[in-house]
Amino acid sequence: MPKLLVRCFSVSIDGFGAGPNQDLDNPVGVGGMDLFDWFHRTRTFQQMHAGEGGETGRDDDIAARGFDNIGAWILGRNMFGPVRGPWPDEAWKGWWGEEPPYHTPVFVLTHHARGPLPMKGGTTFHFVTEGIHTALERATEAAGSRDIRLGGGVSTIRQFLRESLVDDLHLAMAPTLLGSGENLFEGLDMRALGYHCVETTPGTRAAAHVILRKRA
Amino acid sequence: MPKLLVRCFSVSIDGFGAGPNQDLDNPVGVGGMDLFDWFHRTRTFQQMHAGEGGETGRDDDIAARGFDNIGAWILGRNMFGPVRGPWPDEAWKGWWGEEPPYHTPVFVLTHHARGPLPMKGGTTFHFVTEGIHTALERATEAAGSRDIRLGGGVSTIRQFLRESLVDDLHLAMAPTLLGSGENLFEGLDMRALGYHCVETTPGTRAAAHVILRKRA
Repeated sequence: MPKLLVRCFSVSIDGFGAGPNQDLDNPVGVGGMDLFDWFHRTRTFQQMHAGEGGETGRDDDIAARGFDNIGAWILGRNMFGPVRGPWPDEAWKGWWGEEPPYHTPVFVLTHHARGPLPMKGGTTFHFVTEGIHTALERATEAAGSRDIRLGGGVSTIRQFLRESLVDDLHLAMAPTLLGSGENLFEGLDMRALGYHCVETTPGTRAAAHVILRKRA
Repeated sequence: MPKLLVRCFSVSIDGFGAGPNQDLDNPVGVGGMDLFDWFHRTRTFQQMHAGEGGETGRDDDIAARGFDNIGAWILGRNMFGPVRGPWPDEAWKGWWGEEPPYHTPVFVLTHHARGPLPMKGGTTFHFVTEGIHTALERATEAAGSRDIRLGGGVSTIRQFLRESLVDDLHLAMAPTLLGSGENLFEGLDMRALGYHCVETTPGTRAAAHVILRKRA
């Protein structure tokens, strides 16, 4: 049975997974890019996007492990792109160019139907309008013996956490304050939802990596 | 001019500085003692309370530095004790026995007047009924060329943060989830209040130590 995993999800010291005032210039809100500084400097990220460079070390090790054994992804629609409301046409194909870094089926949660979108390198975007349970069923079927990675954003992860559907959640505590935006845990009683902290590891540029897990 | 410092203040991964349902048996709420596990294991703590033992290392170094150059403390009343409302008598003298670990004047915020309470080892508790500004003025005078440590609890620190009165805040991220209780940052826009993250250090048992500072 595939597990539903959150990996390398960055949160600020004050608990935000995205800053305020998201728009095309600030896709994760004002200040939000600081959340990903640790990740953008890793060899794993640089190899994917520039084909070379990047730093090795603890942050890179954990970034690389985040892609291990993943057979399907689930994303919220705002992680797929800036388009809101009905799709005006089929022009938007994600933030990632012709060959997205997923290389698996990716189930995008949306209220607006759209046909599957195959990309280079094995990624196909499937648009799911029936909600998180259907997305999870379809991803489970697609993942086979591998696991499912829930990419985000904040509100998508919160929907899955609220029903204790995430098995294992790796947070990267980013050394920044965002002040406002989308708070990951506000109003979610993670203890009552069955989660506990099982491991922490120092980061190199991240303040710490934290693993939260649902009790068996 | 003395600085107002928060030192070694533990928060859970989900942002709580105390758990829910505080009472005599759970002075920092249900689950709250887990916040202090890293601190209770340090040599600094063990030397103070048992006179021997404890672990050395990064957590201990930072615990010890928390007491350096402190000329006065400020505490919320609930950190001083479990008594609520008017003082029934002078019997309660703090959680710490005859010789509290402060060894300086300690200004306790309360709505209920009480005379100064001198203890062994140089600690005198002064009860301040005129609010945080008066407490800070009196602590500033008492601290002289040294700094002032703001001990907590959560609601006391939040009062000082809301007016950007804390110069420098060291948080210990404890490897635990509390789920509910007193959240340190909820509703406080730390960025708008002028704070930024200047340093993080891995802990030994703490997930990380984080320094937040008011911009000059």
